Amino acid sequence: MTQAPMAALTYHGGRIDAAKALFPNAPAPWLDLSTGINPVAWTPPEGLAVDAAPLPDRSALARLEALAAAHFGVAAERVAAVPGSEMALRLLPMLGVLQPIVAVRPSYGTHGAVASTRVDQSALDDWVGQAGSLLAANPNNPDGVHRSLEQLVRLAAAQERAGGWLILDEAFADAMPGRGFDGGEQVVLLRSFGKFFGLAGVRLGFVIAPPEILTRLRALLGDWPVSAQAIVWGSAAYADSAWIAATRIALRERAAAMDEVLARHGLTARGACPLFRMVETLDAAAIFQRLATAGILVRPFADAPERLRFGVPAATADLERLDRALRHG
Amino acid sequence: MTQAPMAALTYHGGRIDAAKALFPNAPAPWLDLSTGINPVAWTPPEGLAVDAAPLPDRSALARLEALAAAHFGVAAERVAAVPGSEMALRLLPMLGVLQPIVAVRPSYGTHGAVASTRVDQSALDDWVGQAGSLLAANPNNPDGVHRSLEQLVRLAAAQERAGGWLILDEAFADAMPGRGFDGGEQVVLLRSFGKFFGLAGVRLGFVIAPPEILTRLRALLGDWPVSAQAIVWGSAAYADSAWIAATRIALRERAAAMDEVLARHGLTARGACPLFRMVETLDAAAIFQRLATAGILVRPFADAPERLRFGVPAATADLERLDRALRHG
Repeated sequence: MTQAPMAALTYHGGRIDAAKALFPNAPAPWLDLSTGINPVAWTPPEGLAVDAAPLPDRSALARLEALAAAHFGVAAERVAAVPGSEMALRLLPMLGVLQPIVAVRPSYGTHGAVASTRVDQSALDDWVGQAGSLLAANPNNPDGVHRSLEQLVRLAAAQERAGGWLILDEAFADAMPGRGFDGGEQVVLLRSFGKFFGLAGVRLGFVIAPPEILTRLRALLGDWPVSAQAIVWGSAAYADSAWIAATRIALRERAAAMDEVLARHGLTARGACPLFRMVETLDAAAIFQRLATAGILVRPFADAPERLRFGVPAATADLERLDRALRHG
Repeated sequence: MTQAPMAALTYHGGRIDAAKALFPNAPAPWLDLSTGINPVAWTPPEGLAVDAAPLPDRSALARLEALAAAHFGVAAERVAAVPGSEMALRLLPMLGVLQPIVAVRPSYGTHGAVASTRVDQSALDDWVGQAGSLLAANPNNPDGVHRSLEQLVRLAAAQERAGGWLILDEAFADAMPGRGFDGGEQVVLLRSFGKFFGLAGVRLGFVIAPPEILTRLRALLGDWPVSAQAIVWGSAAYADSAWIAATRIALRERAAAMDEVLARHGLTARGACPLFRMVETLDAAAIFQRLATAGILVRPFADAPERLRFGVPAATADLERLDRALRHG
């Protein structure tokens, strides 16, 4: 296994194509546990038509933003749809008011790409604020650390006092119980549609921010930021409160079942997010190889070789496959 | 009709929602002739499945770019997929090498939004080049002016000599016969999937440029620039040479049929692009109102009140409806 293809696996999850090239003899189909994407996707109701022919209607886009805002618990005028929260993150430094960005470490690969500097997570405990932006994730990735509302309010206040901004990547927040953080005058929140709803290929996310930021963002994205499918499916999914409530329960149950399997093999699952679990072990590299050889992709990290992140499978058969692969080392 | 809602109709086509609000008594359904989008969309073959659950696979994205490149007649490594050519245009000034941008007038509303200055189209005849970028469209919008390959090569050379770039918006180029312009060392081409293939809601376009530009663009767009649907449908559509050839013929026939209807009412259709026709008449405002009252939306222009752009309808019934609405003034 050379360094270059392996790098593809440590930068982002979901690179099954790269894994196949590295482990050509692994049994198909691959079980992809390298992302935190819900493997049980929201499915559109029978008859929900998407007309991909015309340009997406601006009023339909506004309706999507309003439905998403209601789900997030924020005012509709503070929400802008984007073609994936990852792209939004990459565009934030271009808005002219948020940079320089200091990103908390560890976190997403993209956080490092858009930041000028990094700080360790422990620096947040007595954060006094600084100009530009502080970029953090909640729940964090890959460790699943979930900060309290009080901590977030304190960080936002420290940033505001320093004339700066707090950018909070809440890509996995839908999976968490309780009322979320609703932002502030100097706060930018990022939300993802694809992770909780299991539809990453739709490319839909949201930026929650004051109008000043949204105006600048929309000037970069133009009048048709997301596809017709994203508008139609997103509008229906955010309004589907029964599915959302049932999924929150199911995710917790599935995470508990995987935690049991991991514990059976001496692995302690860490983190509060039921879409993924982090394991720290000196055997991480060997476990990664063993699982990949069995056609199971988990997420390694270039800068933390003792860590593996496991997405939570839904099917009992998938969990049993993981159990077997961990057993026959 | 107040100024603010009317502005929505003069900035972009396709604003049926705004038209409905302005003309609430118009007969439904509206006939949208305000865009140049092909009203006969490419349809996916039976059984072409789109899996919107996982993150789009990078090798599938590369395959889409290669198939599109083959259709454009350029090398695959010079092509990057984007979520609509309009968004790409808005991001170009952010790449750090193309600005300041001077845009040719008249052209798309978005061209004005990204440009620092404008020049009249006539200035291109003896263009000597300037630093930054010259932004033009071919075929142009709304007048349908189509420049020869020789003219484009000359403009590109002039820009290169001046240490600048030529940005050519070829959003409607698929509808034109003959071999297209394949760019150059200091040339950025923009292509649109949605207009010719009649699928604007998919949000797919391409930037054709040297690697230096694509690397910077991809750093803004991230690893998943377009949706799973865009990848699957785009790959199949660009490979569908039979549909492409038949559509080029059908577009010319439909445009000729509309030209006849327009001529019957004393209106001369201008332009070389069979997806839309431009009409110049002192009665433009009255004709716009008359058509809108009949539920037909054509495209007015704030800065050229004597102009109307007509998208070309496909169905005979739609052409007859246009004929009737023009007759009963």
